[in-house]
Amino acid sequence: MRFAKGHGTGNDFLILPDPDDAAVLPPDLVARLCDRRAGLGADGILRAVRARAGGPAEWFMDYRNADGSIAEMCGNGVRVFARYLLRHGLATGPDFTVATRAGLRQVREEANGEITVDMGAPVAGGRSAAVIGSRSYEGLEVSLGNPHLACVVDVPVGEIDLSAPPVVDRARFPEGVNVEVVRVRGEGDLEMRVHERGSGVTLSCGTGAVAAAVAAQAAVTAAGPGRAHPDGAGPACGDGFGSAHPDRSWAVQVPGGNLVVTLTETTSLLTGPAVIVAEGVLDEAWLARCGGRVA
Amino acid sequence: MRFAKGHGTGNDFLILPDPDDAAVLPPDLVARLCDRRAGLGADGILRAVRARAGGPAEWFMDYRNADGSIAEMCGNGVRVFARYLLRHGLATGPDFTVATRAGLRQVREEANGEITVDMGAPVAGGRSAAVIGSRSYEGLEVSLGNPHLACVVDVPVGEIDLSAPPVVDRARFPEGVNVEVVRVRGEGDLEMRVHERGSGVTLSCGTGAVAAAVAAQAAVTAAGPGRAHPDGAGPACGDGFGSAHPDRSWAVQVPGGNLVVTLTETTSLLTGPAVIVAEGVLDEAWLARCGGRVA
Repeated sequence: MRFAKGHGTGNDFLILPDPDDAAVLPPDLVARLCDRRAGLGADGILRAVRARAGGPAEWFMDYRNADGSIAEMCGNGVRVFARYLLRHGLATGPDFTVATRAGLRQVREEANGEITVDMGAPVAGGRSAAVIGSRSYEGLEVSLGNPHLACVVDVPVGEIDLSAPPVVDRARFPEGVNVEVVRVRGEGDLEMRVHERGSGVTLSCGTGAVAAAVAAQAAVTAAGPGRAHPDGAGPACGDGFGSAHPDRSWAVQVPGGNLVVTLTETTSLLTGPAVIVAEGVLDEAWLARCGGRVA
Repeated sequence: MRFAKGHGTGNDFLILPDPDDAAVLPPDLVARLCDRRAGLGADGILRAVRARAGGPAEWFMDYRNADGSIAEMCGNGVRVFARYLLRHGLATGPDFTVATRAGLRQVREEANGEITVDMGAPVAGGRSAAVIGSRSYEGLEVSLGNPHLACVVDVPVGEIDLSAPPVVDRARFPEGVNVEVVRVRGEGDLEMRVHERGSGVTLSCGTGAVAAAVAAQAAVTAAGPGRAHPDGAGPACGDGFGSAHPDRSWAVQVPGGNLVVTLTETTSLLTGPAVIVAEGVLDEAWLARCGGRVA
């Protein structure tokens, strides 16, 4: 079984090319592959399966979390997936479509080599609070298929201790929530850190970057045209995202690197690096011991 | 540049075959390769360089720590290195010799596939204390080229919090020390955990396993022939390792798996698994960006 290892802003993946959908990949094998010491190590696996001929997408991204569970989409993962397809001539750029469990995703290779993925329209909800450490922060609820609570704060995000899971209103987030702390540093410029449900603090989160931009945009809009930099004001009450406005781009700094989020009237675009580090073959004896095989 | 990834009891390595000593491998590239998210990820790198023809060993193990620094030897690493050579027909088993910065090391592939390495004669020193958490533990100083303080304890080693560096007598260990907590569970059976200087808590440590066996043997010997299991007695004052006695084998359970240490009159042998997980090629563009190349 072949593999490639790559990452997008420090969110790392094993790509397993399986065009004919022939691989047996039980959850236990996924967990062993993603084990950072006894396996190859990754945040998740992107199995590349050829889609039905004549459809809108040539490749389906079968995304698995490191624990073996199935996930719908991953904004950093789909960029690395696209890079792999382009590198191997399996997709024709610069624009093409990838099928995911969350639906079709348009991707584009930019002139600078970064990859943009259409993340779909963020859905902004109401406001609720996250208690982080001993302090309560107000946040904007944003859904990108998965739920986020993005809290605009007035201190450098590195100063906020996210090591313990933030405490949120369980009635509003019955299946948990990803919590972002976001600081607007200037016009179209923010830094953010994230606590992902199930994973804890991570170096990057693609959907979280979009949620952060939505919350930042809402804060700036609420602060009014003369207050592009809400310095020290904390999160203002706004009407959320959704009103008509021109495209807004946000440079988003995450611990693992830099992303750009563009909010249009109809969707959101996530642009960032996608790097392949190495490629190779899984050891056959190891694979057999782990219960994996190619049918 | 080709690579393999493997591990011994959870201590993982990248093997870089470089028979002609042609690779440029600056410390920064080592650190990037060992980065678990932006690179391939490992505890260290084992570069395989062909030794001078006609010498006692055909291969030299150039071991680097994950931070790019040079190290003399690694008991888990040399087993994985030996496995790689055997797998590729680069060494003729079952017995052969590997050159390391710490000198020549005899290795053997056992009938069950595990690999034994001669770790050399442990040198037992005096006794001193390690403060772990709020408690002081007495330990035996053992050198295997690198310094150890192995503390025989009377509780399951999993109950001891090693997250903070143990406090030791700096005058006795001017360059730091690896601290083991060791519990004798029965005749020739011990469990141990280790805090490695520079690395913190690790899943396994080959020299630490030998040091643990030396300390356990000293404790059992001191307790007398009728007390093979010093239950609840804590570390007894013994005369250390070095007196004439028959070979003693210790099953050593570490968090990453199981090892066997055999103490003979003249040396120590470390036996355990050595697993290759995958092999492949580093991405050329990535390698070039990281400053690496094959000359």
